[in-house]
Amino acid sequence: MAEAEAEAELSNTLRILVATDCHLGYMEKDEVRRHDSFKAFDEICSIAEQNRVDFLLLAGDLFHENKPSRSTLVKAIEILRRHCLNNNPVPFQVVSDQTLNFQNSFGHVNYEDPHFNVGLPVFTIHGNHDDPAGVDNLSAVDILSACNLVNYFGKTVLGGSGVGQITLHPILIKKGSTAVALYGLGNIRDERLNRMFQTPHAVQWIRPESQEGCQASDWFNILVLHQNRVKTNPKNAINEHFLPRFLDFIVWGHEHECLVDPKEVPGMGFHISQPGSSVATSLIDGESKPKHVLLLEIKGNQYRPTKIPLMSVRPFEYTEIVLKDEADIDPNDQNSILEHLDKVVVKLIEKSRKKAVNREELKLPLIRIKVDYSGFMTINPQRFGQKYVGKVANPQDILIFSKATRKAKGE
Amino acid sequence: MAEAEAEAELSNTLRILVATDCHLGYMEKDEVRRHDSFKAFDEICSIAEQNRVDFLLLAGDLFHENKPSRSTLVKAIEILRRHCLNNNPVPFQVVSDQTLNFQNSFGHVNYEDPHFNVGLPVFTIHGNHDDPAGVDNLSAVDILSACNLVNYFGKTVLGGSGVGQITLHPILIKKGSTAVALYGLGNIRDERLNRMFQTPHAVQWIRPESQEGCQASDWFNILVLHQNRVKTNPKNAINEHFLPRFLDFIVWGHEHECLVDPKEVPGMGFHISQPGSSVATSLIDGESKPKHVLLLEIKGNQYRPTKIPLMSVRPFEYTEIVLKDEADIDPNDQNSILEHLDKVVVKLIEKSRKKAVNREELKLPLIRIKVDYSGFMTINPQRFGQKYVGKVANPQDILIFSKATRKAKGE
Ligand SMILES: [Mn+2]
Ligand SMILES: [Mn+2]
Ligand SMILES: [Mn+2]
Ligand SMILES: [Mn+2]
Repeated sequence: MAEAEAEAELSNTLRILVATDCHLGYMEKDEVRRHDSFKAFDEICSIAEQNRVDFLLLAGDLFHENKPSRSTLVKAIEILRRHCLNNNPVPFQVVSDQTLNFQNSFGHVNYEDPHFNVGLPVFTIHGNHDDPAGVDNLSAVDILSACNLVNYFGKTVLGGSGVGQITLHPILIKKGSTAVALYGLGNIRDERLNRMFQTPHAVQWIRPESQEGCQASDWFNILVLHQNRVKTNPKNAINEHFLPRFLDFIVWGHEHECLVDPKEVPGMGFHISQPGSSVATSLIDGESKPKHVLLLEIKGNQYRPTKIPLMSVRPFEYTEIVLKDEADIDPNDQNSILEHLDKVVVKLIEKSRKKAVNREELKLPLIRIKVDYSGFMTINPQRFGQKYVGKVANPQDILIFSKATRKAKGE
Repeated sequence: MAEAEAEAELSNTLRILVATDCHLGYMEKDEVRRHDSFKAFDEICSIAEQNRVDFLLLAGDLFHENKPSRSTLVKAIEILRRHCLNNNPVPFQVVSDQTLNFQNSFGHVNYEDPHFNVGLPVFTIHGNHDDPAGVDNLSAVDILSACNLVNYFGKTVLGGSGVGQITLHPILIKKGSTAVALYGLGNIRDERLNRMFQTPHAVQWIRPESQEGCQASDWFNILVLHQNRVKTNPKNAINEHFLPRFLDFIVWGHEHECLVDPKEVPGMGFHISQPGSSVATSLIDGESKPKHVLLLEIKGNQYRPTKIPLMSVRPFEYTEIVLKDEADIDPNDQNSILEHLDKVVVKLIEKSRKKAVNREELKLPLIRIKVDYSGFMTINPQRFGQKYVGKVANPQDILIFSKATRKAKGE
């Protein structure tokens, strides 16, 4: 009887694996790091498979480059083909107008195509790295979509004059008694989107119509977007408070720091999960934190989040030091600086080694030391790194020098 | 009874549609001609479908560029997906070691993959335009192969030192009582291949082993290659006489002139068909001839060739004139030259219009006049072409001037 109940529970629960910013092809020319992005994406797909989720949801920047190399395309296709094509049943339905949801020339969700065995559907929007461009307004993701390996949604056409106008048609998903409206908004320049959010009727959120047995309020509303999140400069980032209150859950892509645990936005009634990238593309503090993906289980209007660590990610240790605060450094003795920095590097390598989960496959760590050199001469980072070749993954840029606090770069 | 006989005949006859040099993406930025390569390829696939062939065989240069644009990749994938994925049965077997035939990470013929409904298999080698390159030695064709939309074969690894060594493992195909050994040799620099052909054991042709009921001599041996065919300079082209005599039929890619009717090579015992390109990439005489593909039906050691015209190809009229031979031209009167050339252009446009098969969709023709201007001043071809915008597809390069006979460019 308990078993039957568990089964009923499962048949009414939509299970989604959420990840983002896989940046396939990142550092593909680097001897040490060239496979990193692919290994992490492969791990994400494996987690989705092992957890028998209903689908994998990605929030943009699947590709690092707008024009991926042949090698990156082939590897991406291979990973998707191995994990997504199988005989597993797909136990949910897309009940919205699929031609409005999916802008390719086939216009249907991939697992409904009669000529492919799709067992693990992938849904993704585009990011700023793989945004649509050119006369045909195609993204690299469109190539995967043409292959029927992903469901690319959230591609908006900025119609109208002036600030423009976009209409968001959610993918309406039903699994048993659970109904999810999935809104996608592929990356748009932050300034532009900001202006649109502040212009009445510029962003049209289409709500599901009430049907028998399913009222508008019964839908669990998810938004996936790929934008800067408001920090210092509100012009170049999106303020969470611009988003409509009917939303229940937001997957925020583009920000690479893993803040995957859903956080409620006070007064707005929705929670935000920021999965962060699966590969570090800038050696900043935020990227050095452990990477996770999110298992999101939705039943009716309730959801349960479970964070799952990514184990294949290259270790990355980050620290900051201020030269003038270090007692063992003599400003007139360059060697005392070098010796001090060497000790820091060695300590960080040791630290990363202790954390290693799999001693069989010890990966060279990424090491980054941000050095405040006020009152000192800088050191050539390339020359400094030479002795760490074969010991760290990024010998050429271990050190970064700063005087004032710098702003983080766009991701 | 006659019906049963016809059916038995069919079940023992391998039916192949042969085409080549589709150059997908050629002129993709040109407003008038951007769709030409795709329309011709779509027509080829339609012909294959309508004739219910067992497979489509291509001899290289499927893509015009080594790194096709997103747009070209998406269009190529769409065309293949629409024509090749369906529920039609595939009534032949590949009995060779498929991992030796197909170098991708899946290592099997595409219609045997359990997760795709392949009803029209495509086999192709690479040409010089889409040759493998980079650290992973990948061709643009590998992208389609990763998608399981084509069977890419004939990718050789030039092993050994010095001139190198290649081993050709044929795809062994059986359909009823008919057995075909299909050898593929993707483009290699002509000089290199020439040296290899002249070096003992440098090119290893693996022959099928005798089996019960099928002797080595029972196989019908086909070679598909993509090289220059010997014309003037034997160093930069392949001599047909270097090819082994056990071959029965050769599909010669790379040469764009359509010489699709199989021609016997005296003393060699094999026939050569040169299908030519499906889109004109150079405005030379050879490309102005009608384009065809070949329906090749093989039963036992016999074959029957049927040429099929391509109807979607843009009309192309070519002529040559010698200014000093034209009576109505006065060397001291530039206008008399212009007037004469204008008459020639108008006549060629008229000629192409008369040939048009489908008056509903009249295509602007390609017009090329090769002008021997010995004893005359040249004319600016761009300026000359201005008045033909909207009347011919290539106003900018209608005229080409020559004094001596020029050599044709590589294709
Ligand atoms: Mn990113
Ligand atoms: Mn981004
Ligand atoms: Mn060619
Ligand atoms: Mn060629």
